[in-house]
Amino acid sequence: MSFSAYQIKANLFALHTNKIFEFTVIAIIVFSALVTGAKTYEVNSTLNAVVVWLDMFITLFFLFEVSIRLIAEPRTLDFFKKGWNVFDFIIVTVSLIPVDGNETVLLARLLRIFRVLRLISIIPELRILISALLKALPRMGYVVLLMFIIFYIYAAIGSFMFEHINQTLWGNISISMLTLFRVATFEDWTDVMYETMTEFPLSWIFYLSFIFLTAFVFLNMMIGVILDVMQQEHEQYYRESGQGEAGEVHWIKENMVEMDEKLQRIELLLSKNVTGVTKDT
Amino acid sequence: MSFSAYQIKANLFALHTNKIFEFTVIAIIVFSALVTGAKTYEVNSTLNAVVVWLDMFITLFFLFEVSIRLIAEPRTLDFFKKGWNVFDFIIVTVSLIPVDGNETVLLARLLRIFRVLRLISIIPELRILISALLKALPRMGYVVLLMFIIFYIYAAIGSFMFEHINQTLWGNISISMLTLFRVATFEDWTDVMYETMTEFPLSWIFYLSFIFLTAFVFLNMMIGVILDVMQQEHEQYYRESGQGEAGEVHWIKENMVEMDEKLQRIELLLSKNVTGVTKDT
Amino acid sequence: MSFSAYQIKANLFALHTNKIFEFTVIAIIVFSALVTGAKTYEVNSTLNAVVVWLDMFITLFFLFEVSIRLIAEPRTLDFFKKGWNVFDFIIVTVSLIPVDGNETVLLARLLRIFRVLRLISIIPELRILISALLKALPRMGYVVLLMFIIFYIYAAIGSFMFEHINQTLWGNISISMLTLFRVATFEDWTDVMYETMTEFPLSWIFYLSFIFLTAFVFLNMMIGVILDVMQQEHEQYYRESGQGEAGEVHWIKENMVEMDEKLQRIELLLSKNVTGVTKDT
Amino acid sequence: MSFSAYQIKANLFALHTNKIFEFTVIAIIVFSALVTGAKTYEVNSTLNAVVVWLDMFITLFFLFEVSIRLIAEPRTLDFFKKGWNVFDFIIVTVSLIPVDGNETVLLARLLRIFRVLRLISIIPELRILISALLKALPRMGYVVLLMFIIFYIYAAIGSFMFEHINQTLWGNISISMLTLFRVATFEDWTDVMYETMTEFPLSWIFYLSFIFLTAFVFLNMMIGVILDVMQQEHEQYYRESGQGEAGEVHWIKENMVEMDEKLQRIELLLSKNVTGVTKDT
Repeated sequence: MSFSAYQIKANLFALHTNKIFEFTVIAIIVFSALVTGAKTYEVNSTLNAVVVWLDMFITLFFLFEVSIRLIAEPRTLDFFKKGWNVFDFIIVTVSLIPVDGNETVLLARLLRIFRVLRLISIIPELRILISALLKALPRMGYVVLLMFIIFYIYAAIGSFMFEHINQTLWGNISISMLTLFRVATFEDWTDVMYETMTEFPLSWIFYLSFIFLTAFVFLNMMIGVILDVMQQEHEQYYRESGQGEAGEVHWIKENMVEMDEKLQRIELLLSKNVTGVTKDT
Repeated sequence: MSFSAYQIKANLFALHTNKIFEFTVIAIIVFSALVTGAKTYEVNSTLNAVVVWLDMFITLFFLFEVSIRLIAEPRTLDFFKKGWNVFDFIIVTVSLIPVDGNETVLLARLLRIFRVLRLISIIPELRILISALLKALPRMGYVVLLMFIIFYIYAAIGSFMFEHINQTLWGNISISMLTLFRVATFEDWTDVMYETMTEFPLSWIFYLSFIFLTAFVFLNMMIGVILDVMQQEHEQYYRESGQGEAGEVHWIKENMVEMDEKLQRIELLLSKNVTGVTKDT
Repeated sequence: MSFSAYQIKANLFALHTNKIFEFTVIAIIVFSALVTGAKTYEVNSTLNAVVVWLDMFITLFFLFEVSIRLIAEPRTLDFFKKGWNVFDFIIVTVSLIPVDGNETVLLARLLRIFRVLRLISIIPELRILISALLKALPRMGYVVLLMFIIFYIYAAIGSFMFEHINQTLWGNISISMLTLFRVATFEDWTDVMYETMTEFPLSWIFYLSFIFLTAFVFLNMMIGVILDVMQQEHEQYYRESGQGEAGEVHWIKENMVEMDEKLQRIELLLSKNVTGVTKDT
Repeated sequence: MSFSAYQIKANLFALHTNKIFEFTVIAIIVFSALVTGAKTYEVNSTLNAVVVWLDMFITLFFLFEVSIRLIAEPRTLDFFKKGWNVFDFIIVTVSLIPVDGNETVLLARLLRIFRVLRLISIIPELRILISALLKALPRMGYVVLLMFIIFYIYAAIGSFMFEHINQTLWGNISISMLTLFRVATFEDWTDVMYETMTEFPLSWIFYLSFIFLTAFVFLNMMIGVILDVMQQEHEQYYRESGQGEAGEVHWIKENMVEMDEKLQRIELLLSKNVTGVTKDT
C-alpha cells in the first residue's frame, strides 16, 4: 500500500506543478475569497454557487493530497517535523469547517483567512518567497532598532520643543514618534512643519535632517538586504553545481594542482634522464 | 524583384537606425498626439497643418517599410509568425484610417491610441524594453499573489474591527483592501489611522505593521527582479560571446583539458624513454 | 614663463584638492548664495560683509586658476576644445559682474545662479557625478518615451470615460495626462478615484492597474540604469588596469596560450627524442 | 589580577553574544524608553517598577562590563583611543544619573536619549551598521551639494516667476527651496502647481522637469552608494581570505607563474638532452 501511496503522491505532484491547474486553483481561491468577502451573494447566484462548489473541491483535493503525503511518510510523526507540513495540515483541517452566511462572527472571519492561506500551501513559489523573507528578517530587525533610536532621539527633541505648540502631535515621546513616522512617509508633513515654523523659524532643519537620515538608513537597509541575498544565492549556486563561472574557476584550481604534480614528476624524470644520458656518453 | 526588395529593406533599415531621423519621427508623433489630443486646433493652424501632414508622411513611410518587409519574406505567411510583425501590420493598417474632427466617438479615441503605438513599431529600443518587462511578468505574478494574501488578512481583521467606525472605508473585505492600498501608498493614511485610534488607541500597530510588511515584500520583489534580470543578462552574454570574464574562464577550462592531455602524453613518452635509455645502458 | 605657469598650475591643483580648502570654499559659496538669496541683509551686517568679501575672493582665486590653466595650455585655442574649460570660462567671466542690491531684475537672478555654478567648476567630484548623469540620459529617454505611451493610452481611456464627471481633471488627453502624473505620485489620488467610482464602481481597476504599470516600468528603468553603470564601470576597470579579478583572468588566458605552445614544443622534441633513442638502440 | 580581568572579559563577551540575553536587553531598554517617555506610570505600577529595576540592572551590568574592559587594557589611556570606547564610557556614566519624575526639564530629556543610546553600546551589529553609514557619508555629501545646486537654480527661477502669485511659497530663494523640497516629496505639490498654472499655463513643465531631475539624481546617488559598498566589501573579502572566486583566481595566477617556470626548465633540459642524444648518435 505504501508503494501506491508513493505513486499517487508522484501523480499529484505532476498535477500540482501543471501551470493550467495551478492558474485555475489560484483563480478559484481568489475569486471565492473576494465574492464571499464582499457579501455580494445577490450579484449572480448561479455563478456564486459554482464558485462555492469549486472552492469546496479544492479543499477536498488539498485534503486528499496532504493525506497521501502523510501516508507516504514511513513514520507518521516525521511528517509533523517539517514546519510546512504542520502549516498545511492546520490549513486543510480548518478549511474543512463550512462557512455559513453569518459573516459577523469572529470565527467566520478567521475561517476566511485560513481559506486564503491555502494559496501558500498549494503554490510552491510562494513558499520560496516566504522563506526568502524569513531569512532576511534578523538583519531587518537590527535596522528597525537603529531606526527606533533615530526616531526616539528626534521624538525626545520634538516633544521638548514643540509640546506647547500642538499637544496632539507632540504630547509625549510616543505620540511624537508616531508624528515623526507620519513625516517619514511624507503624509501632510508640511502642515506639521509650517505649524512649528511660526514659533521656531529654523525648525525646518529638524524636519529636513530627519527626512534625510531616515531615507539614508532605509537606503542602507535595502542595499544590505540586496547584498545579503546576492551573496547567499551565489554561494548556494557555487556549492550545489560545478557549473557557472565560480564553479569553473574552482574546477580550474583543483585541476591545476594535478597538472602541477605532473610537471613536477616530468621534471624529475627528465633531470634523471639527462644525467643518465650524460653518464651514458 | 525579391533582391531589390532586400536592398530597399537594407536601405530602410539604415535610415531607420539613423539617430536624427529617429528623433524627428519621435518628435512628430509625440507632438501630433498631444496637439490632436488637446483639441487646440485654434492655437496655430499653419503649424497644426504641418504636423498633420508630417504625421501622415510617417504613417506612409511606415506602411512602405512594413510592405517591403512583407515582400522581402520568402514565404508571405512566415511574416505573420513573428508577434512583432503582426503588431506592426495591425498598427499601420489602423493608422491609415483618417481621424476627423469628431473627437467624442470611441473610434476616434482608439485611432489616436493606435497612432501613438507607432512609436513602439518604429523605435527598436522600446521593443527591447517591452520584451524585458514581459519576461519579468511571471515572477511579478507570484509577488502580487503574496501581497494579495497580506492585504486579505489585514482587510479581514480591519473590516471586523473597524466596520462600525467607518462603513465607507471598512464596510466589507473588498472595500477594506482598497483602503489598505491607499494606506500602502501613504495617501492620507494618518486620517484613516487617527479615526480608528479614537476607539482603539493601539490600532497604530495594525497600520505600522502593515506598512512595514508591504514595503518589505515590495523591496524583496525589487531585489528578485534585479537578480533575475542580472542572471539572465549574464547567462546570455556567457553563451553568445566567448569574450568577457565568464567567457574567458570557460575558454581557460576547455583549454586546460587539452593541456592536461598533452602533459599526460609527455609523461608517458618520458617514462618509456627513461626505461628505454635505462635498458640501453 | 610657460614653465612657471605649469608650476603654478601644479601648486593650485595641490591647493584645490586640499579637503579643508575645498570645504571652506563650499561653505562660503553656499552661505553666500543663501544669504543674498534670502535678502536678510539686516540680520548681521558685519558677518554679511565678510561673506561678500570672501565670496569675491573665491571668484578672484577661480579667475586666477582659470587664467593659469589658459596660459599653461601650449595652444590657447585648445583650451576651449574641452567642454568643461568653456563652462569654467563662462562661469568665471559672468561671476565677475558685481551683484548690486536690486534683486528684482532678471539679470541679478541669473548672476546668482552663475555664482552657485562655481561649485561645479571648483569641485571635481561634482563633474564626475554630472558626467555619470549625462551618460545615463539616452537610456532614460527611451524609458520616458515608454512611460509617455502608457500615460497616453490611460489618458485616452480616462478622458473618454470620465470627461463628463470632472472637466478640470479629465477635460482632454493633455489634462488627463497631468492628472495621471498626479496619481502616479500618489498625490491625493484617492480623491480622484472616489469621484469616478460613484458612477463607475469598477474604475478602481483603472487606477490600480495604472499605478502597478508605472511603478513597474520605473522599477525596470532603475534596474536598467544600475546594470548599465555597473557594466560600464566594470569594463573600464577591466581595460585600464590588469589588476582585479577580470584583469587576472585575462592575464591567465594570455599566459595559457604561451604555456600551451611550450608544451607543444616539448612534446615534439620528446617524440623526436624517443624515436632518436629507439633508432639508436 | 589582570589575568582574571581578561577571563571575566571573555565570560562577559560570551554572555554578550548570547542571543536570548541580547533580546532580553533590547526588550527592556525599548520598553523602558517607551514607558517613561509616555508618562503612563498609572497603567500598571507593578510592571513599571519591574521595568525600572531591570533597566537599572542593565546599566549596572553595562557599567561592570565597561570597567572590566578598562581594567583589562594594559595601559589605561589606550582604552580611550578607540572612539567606541569613549562613546561607551560617556553613555554608561551619564546613564548612572537617576531619572526623577520631573519630565519637563531639558536634562531629563537628554538623560532619556543617553539611556536609549545604550542599545548601540550593547549590540555590536548596530555599530557595524553605523560604521557603514559613516563610510558612505563623504560620497553622500557631494550628492547633497549637487541637489543643492539643482534646488537653487529652480528656486531662483521659481521665486522670480511666481513671487507675485504666492508670497508665502515663493517669497525669496530660501522659501522657494523649502517649497521645492515639498514638491520633491510629492506633498500636496499639485496644489502648488495648479495655483501657478492659472497665470502660467505651461508652468507644469517647471514642476515635472524638477521632479524628474531630483528623482534621477537621487536614483544615481542610490546606485553610487550600492556600487561603493559592493566594491568595498568585495575588495575586503578578496584581501582577507584566499577563498571565494576572486581568491581562487588570484591563487591560479600565482601558481601559473611557477608552472611556467617549470615548463621553461623542462624545455631547456629537453633541448639539451636532444642535442646530447643527437651528438651521442
